[in-house]
Amino acid sequence: MKITISQAPNYNEETVTIGAWLANKRSSGKIAFLQLRDGTGFMQGVVAKSDVSEEAFQLAKSMPQESSMYITGKIVEDARSPFGYEMQVSNIELIHEAIDYPITPKEHGTEFLMDHRHLWLRSKRQHAIMKIRNEIIRATYQFFNDGGYVKIDPPILTGSSAEGTTELFHTQYFDEEAYLSQSGQLYMEAAAMAFGKVFSFGPTFRAEKSKTRRHLIEFWMIEPEMAFIDHEESLEIQEQYVSFIAQSVLDNCKLELNVLERDTSKLEKIKAPFARISYDDAVVLLQEKGFTDIKWGEDFGAPHETAIAEAYDKPVFIINYPAEIKAFYMKPDPERSDVVLCADLIAPEGYGEIIGGSQRIDDLSLMEERYQQHDLTGPAYQWYLELRQYGSVPHSGFGLGLERTVAWLSGVDHIRETIPFPRLLNRLYP
Amino acid sequence: MKITISQAPNYNEETVTIGAWLANKRSSGKIAFLQLRDGTGFMQGVVAKSDVSEEAFQLAKSMPQESSMYITGKIVEDARSPFGYEMQVSNIELIHEAIDYPITPKEHGTEFLMDHRHLWLRSKRQHAIMKIRNEIIRATYQFFNDGGYVKIDPPILTGSSAEGTTELFHTQYFDEEAYLSQSGQLYMEAAAMAFGKVFSFGPTFRAEKSKTRRHLIEFWMIEPEMAFIDHEESLEIQEQYVSFIAQSVLDNCKLELNVLERDTSKLEKIKAPFARISYDDAVVLLQEKGFTDIKWGEDFGAPHETAIAEAYDKPVFIINYPAEIKAFYMKPDPERSDVVLCADLIAPEGYGEIIGGSQRIDDLSLMEERYQQHDLTGPAYQWYLELRQYGSVPHSGFGLGLERTVAWLSGVDHIRETIPFPRLLNRLYP
Ligand SMILES: [Mg+2]
Ligand SMILES: [Mg+2]
Repeated sequence: MKITISQAPNYNEETVTIGAWLANKRSSGKIAFLQLRDGTGFMQGVVAKSDVSEEAFQLAKSMPQESSMYITGKIVEDARSPFGYEMQVSNIELIHEAIDYPITPKEHGTEFLMDHRHLWLRSKRQHAIMKIRNEIIRATYQFFNDGGYVKIDPPILTGSSAEGTTELFHTQYFDEEAYLSQSGQLYMEAAAMAFGKVFSFGPTFRAEKSKTRRHLIEFWMIEPEMAFIDHEESLEIQEQYVSFIAQSVLDNCKLELNVLERDTSKLEKIKAPFARISYDDAVVLLQEKGFTDIKWGEDFGAPHETAIAEAYDKPVFIINYPAEIKAFYMKPDPERSDVVLCADLIAPEGYGEIIGGSQRIDDLSLMEERYQQHDLTGPAYQWYLELRQYGSVPHSGFGLGLERTVAWLSGVDHIRETIPFPRLLNRLYP
Repeated sequence: MKITISQAPNYNEETVTIGAWLANKRSSGKIAFLQLRDGTGFMQGVVAKSDVSEEAFQLAKSMPQESSMYITGKIVEDARSPFGYEMQVSNIELIHEAIDYPITPKEHGTEFLMDHRHLWLRSKRQHAIMKIRNEIIRATYQFFNDGGYVKIDPPILTGSSAEGTTELFHTQYFDEEAYLSQSGQLYMEAAAMAFGKVFSFGPTFRAEKSKTRRHLIEFWMIEPEMAFIDHEESLEIQEQYVSFIAQSVLDNCKLELNVLERDTSKLEKIKAPFARISYDDAVVLLQEKGFTDIKWGEDFGAPHETAIAEAYDKPVFIINYPAEIKAFYMKPDPERSDVVLCADLIAPEGYGEIIGGSQRIDDLSLMEERYQQHDLTGPAYQWYLELRQYGSVPHSGFGLGLERTVAWLSGVDHIRETIPFPRLLNRLYP
């Protein structure tokens, strides 16, 4: 019977064969302990000299790290391992001997590991982070599918841009110039008018020459957009969504959180509702905390967001920023036109902004005013204006940055570990 | 109670309010029939002069197409409608009057509709196609999540390419030149060695100057890759996957298939197993059918694929193509090195190739030979070679083109209707 490590609990006391790699091993005299991995999990294989052929035992003792094999044996319960099962090996069939695998159990520098990302992904820690990423993606689809949202894929190649073209990648699109999308939002608004509630999940791009632990050049965003939903209703959807993915990770990634030594008590607190603090109050809070650099009307940086988040033990919405520092399409507060109906959701523990969202302008003449102010002309923008011309409705939406969310829930310091093949300043390989 | 049209069956005989647009209407004397849409569905609202205020009745009679409203009334069963329910309207609150909506119930030319894609998506037919697309995506995640696959997002910006660089979009990546990915496969192979079974779902790009009803410049692919899985096992996964999405569409998109007048008896036949025909036999079959242009060693075009598919009433695998006309990474048939262990899955009814897949070369020295033949050098390719150096294992994978699959299951002739915002030769807007 050919099974995977993840299926082992269903084959207790049965003899099975698993295709696997050797993650690590130790041996002494008449016994060898193989740390096996097959992608679905990690499990120990115990090779006793008396149980196997001389050839298989020599293999177990000599096989180098990352060699591949079909390994056969009996699955037995093992109370000492976090996985709960091990294999009493009866045979090993070598597939391929890996000579001098570059990533050994000793410490390696970051640049070295990044150069070997295609192999580094095999390590226990990277494996755990990607499984958590996978669970967040799975739970995202579940949340929005169950909520009646239609998945809409906005285009990547665009002639228009939601927030200026200075940090965009350019490409020649036959006779025209095109940009790589840094947000699908404008298209998602068109889609919300056709499908009511929609969400996207796709790559976005920023040609930003910054090198921080929070920024990637290519990153994935989830962008829901909802017709007939106002700002406050959107905040409720956001806190439910974030609570749902946190709970899903807690429920379905226990082994992985354990590998990462994540403090799960912090994650258990991520339950809706989340607090809201106005931008106005946040400025006062920062000034009280000694941030003399920040004045009303200025945008917050990472240190400010961290300081604000410290006042809470779960994510916090900073709402109603000054219109001046936010995107042209955000709806002004009807009671105060100098601020807009928007929110950034700031994660605790210094993980920063994970969601930006707002209610959108639905009034045609106000949007025309914004077009003039921002000099938005031509076919790239005309269609977006028309959404306010034909059956305009109140609508709201938001964008969640997948990698920052992975970093936060996994407890990973640097965002480069949260995506399979990170694209960074001066890193296009592997 | 604020609900959506899709929720109406749960509110039979209850009075509810729905945010909606006016898709169409007809009226005569003392009654108006409003065709309402809210993105989740279409439903008729019946406005009797005697049931509503004079103002609301005038609104019902005069409101132009695509005006938006909150509409209130009692949900009642309606045996004549495919949806099964209608609303007996008691009030209408206009949100926004749409003046001169450009897409009227009369016929429009394709270019006109494509120019208005942001609005065209609202029409019943386009709505149905996108809901089927959504169902295929949902079912894809279900199939691979349930099968223990990890979702891996390969990079879009790459320095390497699986199949030559002639039809790639270029961009300046800081000091380097980068391409937009036309397949994530090479990365998915690295991921399969780390996670066992993986799948991707993301955009891919071909800068092809062709204008056919089957080609998009930007399209979405699902690319699974499996370690310890050989070619024949991969074919079984493919036929199970395709059968699963076809069945999901049949089960969950009844209204949409009805709108599209899809012959569902054709879809009901899509059940595993699918026939396999060798490339050798396909050439003979084509020659027998009178295709005098095709000789052994040449690739099939769309007319050839259609002719082969006509011999079957469900999808058919064409297996074992000549190595010469297939990608460098495909594993030669151990019994015959002039053909490779690959398959294209051809949909019936002339919808063409929807999957291409193969077992991959796992032998390091053979892969090194291929590198020399294809002149693959530098950091863009070195990492891929290393997958054969460290614990190489038999592995297979495939790529399904989402839009072609949507076209086929929806019964849509032109691929431009299968993606929300198609990118075509000379079409970058909206
Ligand atoms: Mg911010
Ligand atoms: Mg083909």
